[in-house]
Amino acid sequence: MAQKVNSTIHEIARHAGVGVGTVSRVLNDSPNVSPTTREHVLKIIAERGYRPKTAAKVLRTSKTHVIGFITDEIATTPFAGNIIRGAQDAAWEQGKILLLVNTNFNADILQAAIETMLDRQVEGIIYATMYHHAVTLPSIIYEVPAVLLDCYAEDRSLPSVVPDEVLGGRTATEQLLHKGHRRIGFINDIDLIPARFSRLEGYQQALAACQIDFDASLVCYHSPQPTGGYQGCMVLMSLPNPPTAIFCFNDRMAMGAYDALRELHLTIPNDVAVIGFDNMDVIAANLRPPLTTMELPHYAMGQWAVNYLIEHTARPATGAPRQAKLACPLIERASI
Amino acid sequence: MAQKVNSTIHEIARHAGVGVGTVSRVLNDSPNVSPTTREHVLKIIAERGYRPKTAAKVLRTSKTHVIGFITDEIATTPFAGNIIRGAQDAAWEQGKILLLVNTNFNADILQAAIETMLDRQVEGIIYATMYHHAVTLPSIIYEVPAVLLDCYAEDRSLPSVVPDEVLGGRTATEQLLHKGHRRIGFINDIDLIPARFSRLEGYQQALAACQIDFDASLVCYHSPQPTGGYQGCMVLMSLPNPPTAIFCFNDRMAMGAYDALRELHLTIPNDVAVIGFDNMDVIAANLRPPLTTMELPHYAMGQWAVNYLIEHTARPATGAPRQAKLACPLIERASI
Repeated sequence: MAQKVNSTIHEIARHAGVGVGTVSRVLNDSPNVSPTTREHVLKIIAERGYRPKTAAKVLRTSKTHVIGFITDEIATTPFAGNIIRGAQDAAWEQGKILLLVNTNFNADILQAAIETMLDRQVEGIIYATMYHHAVTLPSIIYEVPAVLLDCYAEDRSLPSVVPDEVLGGRTATEQLLHKGHRRIGFINDIDLIPARFSRLEGYQQALAACQIDFDASLVCYHSPQPTGGYQGCMVLMSLPNPPTAIFCFNDRMAMGAYDALRELHLTIPNDVAVIGFDNMDVIAANLRPPLTTMELPHYAMGQWAVNYLIEHTARPATGAPRQAKLACPLIERASI
Repeated sequence: MAQKVNSTIHEIARHAGVGVGTVSRVLNDSPNVSPTTREHVLKIIAERGYRPKTAAKVLRTSKTHVIGFITDEIATTPFAGNIIRGAQDAAWEQGKILLLVNTNFNADILQAAIETMLDRQVEGIIYATMYHHAVTLPSIIYEVPAVLLDCYAEDRSLPSVVPDEVLGGRTATEQLLHKGHRRIGFINDIDLIPARFSRLEGYQQALAACQIDFDASLVCYHSPQPTGGYQGCMVLMSLPNPPTAIFCFNDRMAMGAYDALRELHLTIPNDVAVIGFDNMDVIAANLRPPLTTMELPHYAMGQWAVNYLIEHTARPATGAPRQAKLACPLIERASI
């Protein structure tokens, strides 16, 4: 990709038939180069462009005001668009523009995206995923300041920002406890992702804080879709001692739980309270009754990633890369 | 933005203290330049970068394999992500990568986005909007091959691809006619956008083809949200002679119409048939019953724009810029 524009110093040296040191001397305006060689090297650079690679810091001080933003599929889903909006607003406030590439989970596009961005001399790269999980990125990402958004490196080698899932699960459960519920069902995600485990931990923390024993029969696992929520709700409501409130892993599952409760002629919130997670556009505010839910901090995570990147491009961080966990705000509507 | 990297030929000339012709001769390897001047100009180019402006075609033949993709807010909404997916798949098939900028309707970001892309020597720019409407773009867009996606220039000065709204409205209405319905309500969008007028035209065409007189009382206008669909449905169903089928301007309005019909204890499709428009992710397939709807050709429009751009960058179009109208596929589910 983009092989025409911007070579590394090694490629310039190879094409000019000189050593890397000579190219470096030409670039640094050192006098120890013959006029002929200097002209030759400059011509090769003019023809091929130049992208500092091993000496990236030299260029980085000359701001391009462009930040690379790579997504797995955020740009094409209804889930996390606010991540992009938050990142962009933060970037634009500082006079910078976001150049996005959506990889659609294609490793070749990811590699090409990073190369294209390095070629175009971005000041840094943010890599954002549709949902919170561990990622492994090509090593080329380490050539430029990088921040992970809604994901993290297994080895914690890069800074990242993710939702505080434990606190989110705890807060959702606490809302139901505050309304007087003591038997609270949890329709959890069947997928083995961080949110599943952490929200369950938060749910258990909230119950424990109220001296309520954990009852495993009140937790079921289904696909994170309306059909999964429908099935989970039917399972919970057929228990000998069914819950009076249900915490749904996401708003889509809550949408299915609404359908199940309607079929069972149970009203929300009088017969059964329902709380969701995501504050998903289109769904949450438009269900009947409007859904009380936990909002994923997409906008705030977008802002955080850009601000952290800009700050630490100017002044590199010391110590281990940081992981920020942002709280999920409660959105109060009419379902609990 | 990005003022450091890539100047125009005029800026190079000004900084080098020579004429534009001299810069051009250096760039074209013409012998009529003294070695000193040549070296000086090449040095300025190496320092500042060079973006051909008036002479864009020179560079365009040296492919960068990057296409700029500017959106108003597609990347941050749940509506039209398939536009990006279609464009990207088409680009990647031809070994090219899409660099996206989302402007969020900010004219300054739009200007900066185009400049940033020209600086980074994209082969062309696609400008895409969230819904079909006329747009006015800054004149700098004409410096590079450009295609409009889901929008068009009022003066038709740029090629564009949009949905065939008339055909979509006609097809939706025909589906209801084929099921035997003769009183068909249309809950239309209150906004004065092309889809409102064109889908109504299609609705009228379909009725006329069946010799059914147009009854203006069967068409109402509401906000294109679930609440608007709910209100519109209530209005139509309270007519002395209510419709037996309802065509909703979009799936969100159909979602509200479902709620209204449920409140009226009317079943779908037995008592009232409902057809939507958009095939919107999350909603359409998950309503009960699943919604029959017209799909906006987002993916196909994305593909079309990229393929047209690549083809006409290689071989410029002759004659007036083309507007392609793509059909909206019928998605059959269980609501009619």
